[in-house]
Amino acid sequence: MHGQTGIEPRTLQTQTDDCWLAAATKSKIPDRFAQAVVDIVGSENVSTTDAVREQHGHDESYHTTSPPDIVAFAESTEHVSQVAKLCNDHEVPLIPFGSGTGLEGGINALKGGLCLDLSKMKKILSVHPEDFDCTVEAGVTRVTLNNYLRDTGLTFPIDPGADASVCGMCATSASGTNAVRYGTMRENVLNMEVVLPDGRVIHTAGKGRRTKKTSAGYNLTNLFVGSEGTLGIITQATLRLHGIPEATISAVCSFNTIQEAVDSTVQILQMGIPIARIEFLDEVSVDACNRYSKLDMKVAPSLFFEFTGSPDTLDKQAEVVKDIASMNGASEFKWASKPEERNQLWKARHDILYACMALNPGSKPYSTDVCVPISNLPEVITRSKEAIQKAGVIGPIVGHVGDGNFHVFFPTDRSNPEEVKKISDVSVYMAQIAMELDGTCTGEHGIGMGKRGLLQQEIGDEGMEVMKQLKSTFDPKGIMNPGKVFPE
Amino acid sequence: MHGQTGIEPRTLQTQTDDCWLAAATKSKIPDRFAQAVVDIVGSENVSTTDAVREQHGHDESYHTTSPPDIVAFAESTEHVSQVAKLCNDHEVPLIPFGSGTGLEGGINALKGGLCLDLSKMKKILSVHPEDFDCTVEAGVTRVTLNNYLRDTGLTFPIDPGADASVCGMCATSASGTNAVRYGTMRENVLNMEVVLPDGRVIHTAGKGRRTKKTSAGYNLTNLFVGSEGTLGIITQATLRLHGIPEATISAVCSFNTIQEAVDSTVQILQMGIPIARIEFLDEVSVDACNRYSKLDMKVAPSLFFEFTGSPDTLDKQAEVVKDIASMNGASEFKWASKPEERNQLWKARHDILYACMALNPGSKPYSTDVCVPISNLPEVITRSKEAIQKAGVIGPIVGHVGDGNFHVFFPTDRSNPEEVKKISDVSVYMAQIAMELDGTCTGEHGIGMGKRGLLQQEIGDEGMEVMKQLKSTFDPKGIMNPGKVFPE
Repeated sequence: MHGQTGIEPRTLQTQTDDCWLAAATKSKIPDRFAQAVVDIVGSENVSTTDAVREQHGHDESYHTTSPPDIVAFAESTEHVSQVAKLCNDHEVPLIPFGSGTGLEGGINALKGGLCLDLSKMKKILSVHPEDFDCTVEAGVTRVTLNNYLRDTGLTFPIDPGADASVCGMCATSASGTNAVRYGTMRENVLNMEVVLPDGRVIHTAGKGRRTKKTSAGYNLTNLFVGSEGTLGIITQATLRLHGIPEATISAVCSFNTIQEAVDSTVQILQMGIPIARIEFLDEVSVDACNRYSKLDMKVAPSLFFEFTGSPDTLDKQAEVVKDIASMNGASEFKWASKPEERNQLWKARHDILYACMALNPGSKPYSTDVCVPISNLPEVITRSKEAIQKAGVIGPIVGHVGDGNFHVFFPTDRSNPEEVKKISDVSVYMAQIAMELDGTCTGEHGIGMGKRGLLQQEIGDEGMEVMKQLKSTFDPKGIMNPGKVFPE
Repeated sequence: MHGQTGIEPRTLQTQTDDCWLAAATKSKIPDRFAQAVVDIVGSENVSTTDAVREQHGHDESYHTTSPPDIVAFAESTEHVSQVAKLCNDHEVPLIPFGSGTGLEGGINALKGGLCLDLSKMKKILSVHPEDFDCTVEAGVTRVTLNNYLRDTGLTFPIDPGADASVCGMCATSASGTNAVRYGTMRENVLNMEVVLPDGRVIHTAGKGRRTKKTSAGYNLTNLFVGSEGTLGIITQATLRLHGIPEATISAVCSFNTIQEAVDSTVQILQMGIPIARIEFLDEVSVDACNRYSKLDMKVAPSLFFEFTGSPDTLDKQAEVVKDIASMNGASEFKWASKPEERNQLWKARHDILYACMALNPGSKPYSTDVCVPISNLPEVITRSKEAIQKAGVIGPIVGHVGDGNFHVFFPTDRSNPEEVKKISDVSVYMAQIAMELDGTCTGEHGIGMGKRGLLQQEIGDEGMEVMKQLKSTFDPKGIMNPGKVFPE
């Protein structure tokens, strides 16, 4: 058997009473394959129980669960490499799993196969405070990393909301509220260790390299950022860190129209004010926030601001922003300079998903995201709201307005197919408007299984052909996360 | 003939007395091929004269000229597509040419072939001031673009020194003094139109898309940024623009040691001060500046600073920086808040290449660049200086210290092979030290023909294998800029 799989015999076990082995017979995976997986990662790291397979068969999205046949937990790059080679040799689908917090069904095992859970790879391998970088294993989450970094005065600011694994964030090209200041994963990953489907281990910028910039060869790093597990498995990432700002103040203000809020944002950006966050909430979201977080904001299109920097410069930044907002018709400009006020405000923003769900008790989120050039935001938001209204569903809108990116968090009764269909139709329509207005069908959630058809439309036939060629180059047998990104 | 090349017959000319045709016979290119090129771009856009071929056979580096056999000037993407297909069908080497301002021999026609000059493609196709983006054709230079943008209050801040074409800057992954604030080309290109060797035209982010971020499919944009003409021909780029800061002040100060200058830089970055430029000059460069630009700076390791922002906040930023520098042993802290003083200072920095050349009259530049994590800068600079001294050559050091990137501008007598050999040996040694210290052999000049062996060492065998696979995917016949990036 080992000769067949190309794996060196290690601790071949003759387990007869192992629960995983019994369970394996229920699934499509042959015992011999399952045994080979055990030989690599150890029996404690393999499961074929329904509960574990079910848990690994879906993310936080509305997509129907598709469990893998077998789940393996990797503890090292060596594990990943050997499992990949095994799957490749036997043409078994291989789905990398980080934290399961994705929003487009990126981990659903549409063709069964092996789910490789990387959450046990959680070493923080190095932190270089003077160089503003660190290197972590695949399973480290952003909150764990930031807790670890606390004493260094540095932070990894990319914040997609969920406590996602860093390598999952790489795979999805995640971003969030801080992107207007710090960029997305694309701008904050310096290097990655990646296991290719055939088991080869590469370092996208060369082993150990961690420079802020380079012109040496093709940018493999940014080819794997956003590849959604379809080209290889990210096992380590070297990340840019940023200084924790000395001081922070926050503010919130409301407008009469979406246009006023967007115009204010454009003018603030034009002034080059190094604002840390600008978040848009429509009146439905504000209402949800008020109810859920016990606030008393005016129910109107609103902007949340966060200013960071040295205490001396903050007030001046904020005054300029207040002037700009006022000139554009803002009212109810409220400061939150004390930590408790600020925390309350941003906690409300952070809890907005729960607040939106509370608008429809018992519901679960159906979350979609699109991104357009900022000047097109008013049109795409207005038309989206019309579509939401026409469909008769609840659709609060929350946006990273500085990036032209926004979400609708539909509180959905997932057991009601009619409602799901309506919401799905609105989501597709939103993506269509975004694309019509020079935008993209996803700013930060990725394509996964949910937006495959839209990608074709967005990139065009020639672009898709090239992406397929890339896929074939890295994964000629098509084992990596099959059914994702590419339309069937 | 057209049947063979797959090109639609257009204005087939029967020129008998054309000078290009006469000249073509001198070169390796068959008349029939040259005629097919004329049929595509018109006879006014083809040349095989020695002068034009020679001019297209080298950039600004020390590498020996390798002229192409034929030079064609494209006026449209359609021209580029048809020429690429022609070259591909006939397996003729194809070298894209922007402005010829590269520093690693990226355009030298090592295998002869056709040089496709894009400098006639100079339309600024669109500017969207509220969206901070513009789309330009391949041949637009950064100075032309910034002159055009002046009235919008926006700027394209990437400044590699030379007035390079924007698409050449894309191809090299250029950066420069502003990168510490605005990033490199990697962070500032939103989309590109690219012609593949077989003539297919793709838009890396989908046609017309210009969002600040996207998670839709593979990041083709950043695969072509830095591809140095080896994967395809960049014909258009959509770029991020930035607001021109309201106010600017500059300062210069000197230190006792390189370590003090680097420590100051690290602390300034840790404070999160949004500094626009921090440039390091060693004592040799300062001396060169003093002589050439009639300044009276202390001859010691020095930092040039530029602060930008709203007038209210600038002084405070600058005071903090002064305090940090003083605590690290800085002396001679000189402000330049008036435009004329500031211009004098930064003109001196901008003219540094000429100043360095003047240290060795009649010399031409041999310029090299490496990049390391910033904490390793003192070691790599100190060891580089030792090597320069030991070799007995003049080697002024100038660095984008905030990025860990620095250059040596050797004033070289290119006619003296012994001197060139010494300098080349020092350059290779510098790259070796940089790589030993987690760095890269090139931060912004690219690999070109000069650093092919070093790339192999930097990326490792597996990484190079993957880069070669990518090259074969896009350019299976190997016609695109052959002899570059990859070691033979």
